[in-house]
Amino acid sequence: MAKAIHSMIRVLEETRSLDFYKQAFELNVADRLDFDSFTLVYLSNSECTFELELTVNKDQKEAYELGNGYGHLAVSVDDLDAEHRKIKDLGFEPRDIVEFEREGTLIARFFFVNDPDGYAIEVLERGGRFL
Amino acid sequence: MAKAIHSMIRVLEETRSLDFYKQAFELNVADRLDFDSFTLVYLSNSECTFELELTVNKDQKEAYELGNGYGHLAVSVDDLDAEHRKIKDLGFEPRDIVEFEREGTLIARFFFVNDPDGYAIEVLERGGRFL
Repeated sequence: MAKAIHSMIRVLEETRSLDFYKQAFELNVADRLDFDSFTLVYLSNSECTFELELTVNKDQKEAYELGNGYGHLAVSVDDLDAEHRKIKDLGFEPRDIVEFEREGTLIARFFFVNDPDGYAIEVLERGGRFL
Repeated sequence: MAKAIHSMIRVLEETRSLDFYKQAFELNVADRLDFDSFTLVYLSNSECTFELELTVNKDQKEAYELGNGYGHLAVSVDDLDAEHRKIKDLGFEPRDIVEFEREGTLIARFFFVNDPDGYAIEVLERGGRFL
């Protein structure tokens, strides 16, 4: 059976992306494959085998067009308020925490923050179906 | 510690996307949340807790702009040739199988296929670092 193993995004600057994902979410370099014209970096941590793959095309100078189709990578955390403060203190710009209800029931508590290339990351408080 | 839990893409037609992901990769509906203007569908299977979240915006008529930043979702399979044949027999259009070597060492054996909205899926043969 097919197993989801990674999601790939193209990023402009390797170091700033590695710093962001490490500082904000403790996602570390699991592997790095360097080729003449591009570098692949696989990020993960002990919470999940699924990896975020960063492709760094060495000739790319312009920001990538993000379009309006791809949405986000979501991560869950135990303490959303602490994570929000941490990300703000790191100098990134998380949006406000949102409580998403339906018919009086809390479905999700989350905020969004953009990575250095503008890709949205959804940070969800662990609970309900978001474990 | 932050745990990667899902990746979200926006799709135009719920049924054709569900059919594709189920038929091609045995990704099934883990949950479906229907709201007035949009529906969220979470797809997964027993291989991995990570989910693919589909957002279906009910007023969306035009194809989404996919841009050139987001790359792909990758899945691994035991038998790449069988998976390639299966996907072809289902009427989808997988690209040719590629063997990616570096200095004589096989790094990855894979093919790409687009989902109904044009998002690329990379199908990798299980092995090396792609387990």
